Amino acid sequence: MRSILILHGPNLNLLGTREPGVYGSQTMRDIDDMCKTLGGELGVEVRSAQSNSEGVLIDLLQEADGRDAGVVFNPGGYTHTSVALRDAVAAISIPVIEVHLSNPQAREEFRRRSLIAPVCRGSIAGLGPLSYTLALRALVEIA
Amino acid sequence: MRSILILHGPNLNLLGTREPGVYGSQTMRDIDDMCKTLGGELGVEVRSAQSNSEGVLIDLLQEADGRDAGVVFNPGGYTHTSVALRDAVAAISIPVIEVHLSNPQAREEFRRRSLIAPVCRGSIAGLGPLSYTLALRALVEIA
Amino acid sequence: MRSILILHGPNLNLLGTREPGVYGSQTMRDIDDMCKTLGGELGVEVRSAQSNSEGVLIDLLQEADGRDAGVVFNPGGYTHTSVALRDAVAAISIPVIEVHLSNPQAREEFRRRSLIAPVCRGSIAGLGPLSYTLALRALVEIA
Amino acid sequence: MRSILILHGPNLNLLGTREPGVYGSQTMRDIDDMCKTLGGELGVEVRSAQSNSEGVLIDLLQEADGRDAGVVFNPGGYTHTSVALRDAVAAISIPVIEVHLSNPQAREEFRRRSLIAPVCRGSIAGLGPLSYTLALRALVEIA
Amino acid sequence: MRSILILHGPNLNLLGTREPGVYGSQTMRDIDDMCKTLGGELGVEVRSAQSNSEGVLIDLLQEADGRDAGVVFNPGGYTHTSVALRDAVAAISIPVIEVHLSNPQAREEFRRRSLIAPVCRGSIAGLGPLSYTLALRALVEIA
Amino acid sequence: MRSILILHGPNLNLLGTREPGVYGSQTMRDIDDMCKTLGGELGVEVRSAQSNSEGVLIDLLQEADGRDAGVVFNPGGYTHTSVALRDAVAAISIPVIEVHLSNPQAREEFRRRSLIAPVCRGSIAGLGPLSYTLALRALVEIA
Amino acid sequence: MRSILILHGPNLNLLGTREPGVYGSQTMRDIDDMCKTLGGELGVEVRSAQSNSEGVLIDLLQEADGRDAGVVFNPGGYTHTSVALRDAVAAISIPVIEVHLSNPQAREEFRRRSLIAPVCRGSIAGLGPLSYTLALRALVEIA
Amino acid sequence: MRSILILHGPNLNLLGTREPGVYGSQTMRDIDDMCKTLGGELGVEVRSAQSNSEGVLIDLLQEADGRDAGVVFNPGGYTHTSVALRDAVAAISIPVIEVHLSNPQAREEFRRRSLIAPVCRGSIAGLGPLSYTLALRALVEIA
Amino acid sequence: MRSILILHGPNLNLLGTREPGVYGSQTMRDIDDMCKTLGGELGVEVRSAQSNSEGVLIDLLQEADGRDAGVVFNPGGYTHTSVALRDAVAAISIPVIEVHLSNPQAREEFRRRSLIAPVCRGSIAGLGPLSYTLALRALVEIA
Amino acid sequence: MRSILILHGPNLNLLGTREPGVYGSQTMRDIDDMCKTLGGELGVEVRSAQSNSEGVLIDLLQEADGRDAGVVFNPGGYTHTSVALRDAVAAISIPVIEVHLSNPQAREEFRRRSLIAPVCRGSIAGLGPLSYTLALRALVEIA
Amino acid sequence: MRSILILHGPNLNLLGTREPGVYGSQTMRDIDDMCKTLGGELGVEVRSAQSNSEGVLIDLLQEADGRDAGVVFNPGGYTHTSVALRDAVAAISIPVIEVHLSNPQAREEFRRRSLIAPVCRGSIAGLGPLSYTLALRALVEIA
Amino acid sequence: MRSILILHGPNLNLLGTREPGVYGSQTMRDIDDMCKTLGGELGVEVRSAQSNSEGVLIDLLQEADGRDAGVVFNPGGYTHTSVALRDAVAAISIPVIEVHLSNPQAREEFRRRSLIAPVCRGSIAGLGPLSYTLALRALVEIA
Repeated sequence: MRSILILHGPNLNLLGTREPGVYGSQTMRDIDDMCKTLGGELGVEVRSAQSNSEGVLIDLLQEADGRDAGVVFNPGGYTHTSVALRDAVAAISIPVIEVHLSNPQAREEFRRRSLIAPVCRGSIAGLGPLSYTLALRALVEIA
Repeated sequence: MRSILILHGPNLNLLGTREPGVYGSQTMRDIDDMCKTLGGELGVEVRSAQSNSEGVLIDLLQEADGRDAGVVFNPGGYTHTSVALRDAVAAISIPVIEVHLSNPQAREEFRRRSLIAPVCRGSIAGLGPLSYTLALRALVEIA
Repeated sequence: MRSILILHGPNLNLLGTREPGVYGSQTMRDIDDMCKTLGGELGVEVRSAQSNSEGVLIDLLQEADGRDAGVVFNPGGYTHTSVALRDAVAAISIPVIEVHLSNPQAREEFRRRSLIAPVCRGSIAGLGPLSYTLALRALVEIA
Repeated sequence: MRSILILHGPNLNLLGTREPGVYGSQTMRDIDDMCKTLGGELGVEVRSAQSNSEGVLIDLLQEADGRDAGVVFNPGGYTHTSVALRDAVAAISIPVIEVHLSNPQAREEFRRRSLIAPVCRGSIAGLGPLSYTLALRALVEIA
Repeated sequence: MRSILILHGPNLNLLGTREPGVYGSQTMRDIDDMCKTLGGELGVEVRSAQSNSEGVLIDLLQEADGRDAGVVFNPGGYTHTSVALRDAVAAISIPVIEVHLSNPQAREEFRRRSLIAPVCRGSIAGLGPLSYTLALRALVEIA
Repeated sequence: MRSILILHGPNLNLLGTREPGVYGSQTMRDIDDMCKTLGGELGVEVRSAQSNSEGVLIDLLQEADGRDAGVVFNPGGYTHTSVALRDAVAAISIPVIEVHLSNPQAREEFRRRSLIAPVCRGSIAGLGPLSYTLALRALVEIA
Repeated sequence: MRSILILHGPNLNLLGTREPGVYGSQTMRDIDDMCKTLGGELGVEVRSAQSNSEGVLIDLLQEADGRDAGVVFNPGGYTHTSVALRDAVAAISIPVIEVHLSNPQAREEFRRRSLIAPVCRGSIAGLGPLSYTLALRALVEIA
Repeated sequence: MRSILILHGPNLNLLGTREPGVYGSQTMRDIDDMCKTLGGELGVEVRSAQSNSEGVLIDLLQEADGRDAGVVFNPGGYTHTSVALRDAVAAISIPVIEVHLSNPQAREEFRRRSLIAPVCRGSIAGLGPLSYTLALRALVEIA
Repeated sequence: MRSILILHGPNLNLLGTREPGVYGSQTMRDIDDMCKTLGGELGVEVRSAQSNSEGVLIDLLQEADGRDAGVVFNPGGYTHTSVALRDAVAAISIPVIEVHLSNPQAREEFRRRSLIAPVCRGSIAGLGPLSYTLALRALVEIA
Repeated sequence: MRSILILHGPNLNLLGTREPGVYGSQTMRDIDDMCKTLGGELGVEVRSAQSNSEGVLIDLLQEADGRDAGVVFNPGGYTHTSVALRDAVAAISIPVIEVHLSNPQAREEFRRRSLIAPVCRGSIAGLGPLSYTLALRALVEIA
Repeated sequence: MRSILILHGPNLNLLGTREPGVYGSQTMRDIDDMCKTLGGELGVEVRSAQSNSEGVLIDLLQEADGRDAGVVFNPGGYTHTSVALRDAVAAISIPVIEVHLSNPQAREEFRRRSLIAPVCRGSIAGLGPLSYTLALRALVEIA
Repeated sequence: MRSILILHGPNLNLLGTREPGVYGSQTMRDIDDMCKTLGGELGVEVRSAQSNSEGVLIDLLQEADGRDAGVVFNPGGYTHTSVALRDAVAAISIPVIEVHLSNPQAREEFRRRSLIAPVCRGSIAGLGPLSYTLALRALVEIA
């Protein structure tokens, strides 16, 4: 049975418990559960991981290659600054879809550029937890 | 019964008949049919329109407001240059999701900036026709 | 009897019916009426037109040349992006005054530059419908 | 009886006596007289001041607050460089309208940006002495 | 018998009737006639079209594909701003040669960049009506 | 007995009487009194001055050199534009500490650069009146 | 009894043992001791931590929230590059004051921008170890 | 009998002998012969020269003035960097037409700007050897 | 007898008394004396003035017009920031020569641009007090 | 016996096993073996380490100081983004030589700038595994 | 007896014979004669040279070192583009003064930056042939 | 027997005789001798050439193609400005390695960009004469 990795970047572990007015009241665990339920319907196993560390995220992407069929990746604040993460996504052969809860294009200037997007299969942004489940659907179709 | 507008921007009428190696062999009509079939499953009516003209696209967005529950909008080459289209999306009250077949972030420098994205509810890019059907699913959930 | 053209650019047809908190409750028609009343006092005929299309706005400017004594022009979102409209204003020989309801300098970065202003006779911004009537007064003086 | 301050920035005291081919033959005093005459018609007192000094202009703006109903302000060369004048305009509570005799957008690159405009109620440029009298009319309406 | 389309962009319909000191006294019709005469000598049919609208120019380019052997295209003010026109030129398979009467590199900064040039077969600028006839000769050789 | 100059730049004389929601309700005099009290505790005399004029501020800095042991300087809007004030701070030999009530890095883009900071001994920003008293403590230690 | 976290970023563990001519002879431990002594006087507990890793610093900031009353944070080289650290500071609810031993504005161009400053309560720079103790004083007042 | 100078810049002496897949199999001599044949038909003498040296190209342009009726000039890599060549073209009174075999606008960013174009009579690019013969035709018409 | 004004900008009153290692040991008075002596030889009266205030410098330039035959002007730190001083130099009809003791092009980036130079008759920089006497010689020749 | 550290940055652990067409078929271990063999010939011990984490790489550089005689450092994707790594290289006293397998100057724009290079003793790029062995030779000479 | 080299860069050999309205009617030889006459008065030998070639100008600067006491250098169009000439001026030990007939700061944007100025002893611009004789005077004083 | 060309750009002929504190005391001849000795060991003939002229350097590169097996090239000041030299390196088929004695990335901003690097096989910088001998070793391995 194929598996998909849901990979959460820095500060996403705080989701739902802080600033619910901005980021919604759903926690990272709630999003993982939604994805696992949908994975069950679509016939794929869903596993998830989170780290605040750029290096650990690179490790996790490298490990997913050869183990998972694809990655739903929210790189958080590293989206705009990490050439190393970009290189990791480019180096592995499984498809990666970049997701964001909010729309980075509608925020500060320095969030306009995604270093990760050019090497991803696709990008989904601004739709809250729906960004994750739509990416999961897409991976099941294309992986 | 609610309806959703699939709005195609400039040159998308050429889809599938040219450069299939790049843009795939599916035509704009094929995409519309996929969306209509999915719309049937999800219980919404799907209608579609295309124009090469910035002004006509603004007219169509204004008309959709009050008639449709949401818009799946591929602004094509106007994505990067049209303040007027941005103002139209901002002025109407129904949700608009921006879609792109390919990933503009992976193309020329002048395609990196989307003037439309900051006023849309969400953005989906790089997943081919799947970008449209995922956007349709999202609108049905949030509209 | 001389005439003046009030020319409204994209999305100004939505004025007053949407976001009255931002743009005020006066409609485009209300502004036209104010201008026509003032025109009556000042002894000029006032006619008006609106289009969402850059090309149609160019056509209207070209037609005004030789027919009207001047143009009060709100180029809306085309202010910042249209070299073609700029060329049209520069090509005709009657005076054009650029008007804006709000102050573009106080909004997003991409609204700071007006491609139209350098070829207009003058610019009036930020004063709501008053921007139009002051421009009309000015044209009556200088045209 | 309400009063309005006409505030002239640096070098405007030279108006009319130099380069009449460029700036017209009207002096600063002529403009003041036009404004005073119009003020009489509109029922407001018009007083005027000029300084070449950024600091003195800030002093004059601060003093006008609580004394005058509004300011017609031509910041001259300080338009493009003075954050301190901008802060003064923002700090006072009476409306200020920025005026320019010529159109800064049509001149050198460094005159394109107005630091003052974003904190003014409105801006009028390019119409010669008419810029002042239209601004005076506007203040009488909105102050 | 093969045909070539001469496609004139915005404001070129005003040619010759205005500012003859700048743009010469030849009208758009004069240029078309020169091209038709030369086409007769070279054994190709020459037809021409003009529009002020970006969308209509895209329509005309799409229609020329499959009908004409090449296009002599003066994109006017859209040269510098239209990604959509660029995409249209790139999407069609017949050769397009960009022409300009004057030399955009010798004018304002914003006319320095041509979005159209990189997808054209060649560019000819600054030679007045000669730009058109040279382009016609080139197309007859390479089409 | 050593003395320290508290030097307030443009518009700081308005402090506390306007926009208390933004800048707090403490006046410039309140801040001076806090500093004088603290100065008493720390065994230094505190004197203060304010001017809206760049030139007068330069005069005051030059006069402090040889008279005071250091300067707590809030350059206000001149922070971002004045090379002349920078040169004055660099030219005198007593230590100067730059203070700001709010955090300029969190405001408009043009407030990001401080021309004054590189020649000051230190910078304290964002802490309201506390910025002044901390700077005073620092000067007493290092002067 | 309330506690304050002194958080040192990358390379600060080398302090004092290398390049004492530049950074002074005080070690990171000396600074911690100064802060603990002052904390004792002010009635707060002071604890400290250091890491060279962006991810670990984010972990430490998240853990401080709910445990400490505030953070004195020297983000070192991450000041200018880390959006993820910025997001962490913004996400937690206790006040953070950014400190620097030297003045980044007086160093290389790439050190001019602080991504962290806009989300901190205040910033203190250039005063050596004094930057830390002043920040501690400030936190005790405002936390 | 009038003469025209064909002036080839740096590396054009390698033409045809290297990378024929990119630059075609025609040598610089072939192009010269094509031009001489066409010159014979048009009644002008055609002479040619090549140099890899910026200074020698300036010498050749200066010598052509007063000797030839015009210059067809391919400045090669100096197009984008040489103010001195630009000044030479501007200083001489015979018309110069800039030619390029490929389209610089479709290559690297640093080839987008032509320092030479603004002082030339016209520019022809992207049409291979045809660029030269069209330029020759144009010079015969305008010289 | 003709007179020349030597006009010193901000901080030049400190010359010679501070940082003689950098700026030399000659005071502003020494430079004035050198100029007066040379003026005696050349048959012109030399008078001098200094101010730290941008506004006062503008006043002095305006007053020199009609009184002196030319101005040797060291605008100091205002060189790079003052549009108002530039406008003053441009407005008066006597020749102004910009002088600098050191070479601004060899200092910080923000000193590279002179707003004053484009409206001066000439510029002399980097030669210490000699910059002033050479400028005086030049004015005597051209004024 | 002296030792040299070969320090590999992010994603270099994937070398040789992926995209051999691009990066060659040699693994990181192969490169280490080449360096160890050469070290044996040159009389130095060679040890190696790799990490995907910026923080761990800083730790390793700090530990090498005092233990190794020099470092051959391939900072991978951190080359372009890490001020913290730059500070670490600058803080340690042993020589560091930056190496790259491919030539970053020939890749994307964001790889043009090396934050690390200015503080390294030298840089070697584009020569594949040879970049490492040449750097090793250089360190043996200069360390 | 000491000698001074007057070194003229590209296109200055055309001086006086072309565009006398712009550059004056004095030839390069006239300027040399003026300098030689003045040299006679000041007791130095004056020799001169001109070249259109960057490389030859570098050769001439290198040869002057050890032979002449200083160089009056008009680098013409190479002023703005030549790092190699800058390095030559920096490498020799005799003083070089940069001169320009016109004021580059008042011309095109690309003439604003002088790569040569930062390594020259001084710069004199905008004073026509007087620029040369003043530079000669300065060299006699400082060499 | 194969040969390698050591090609020195502008001002390198001054090496060792001037500023030995900066560039070391080794002359260009010393470096050539080191390379010839090493060439003897490695079994290749080493020849060398130097020119201050961009055009001559292009000639030398073209001549080396077909005669030498590779080029060690120090382009000096042309590194940052010469598109023509870049085109020459790209046009020839033998490998070229760029070398620099010092590290351009650690010097002025305008030395950061190498136009030559992207078309070279590799780049070695900052290691003094060692840069040359390492490049020679590399060429022997790869040529």
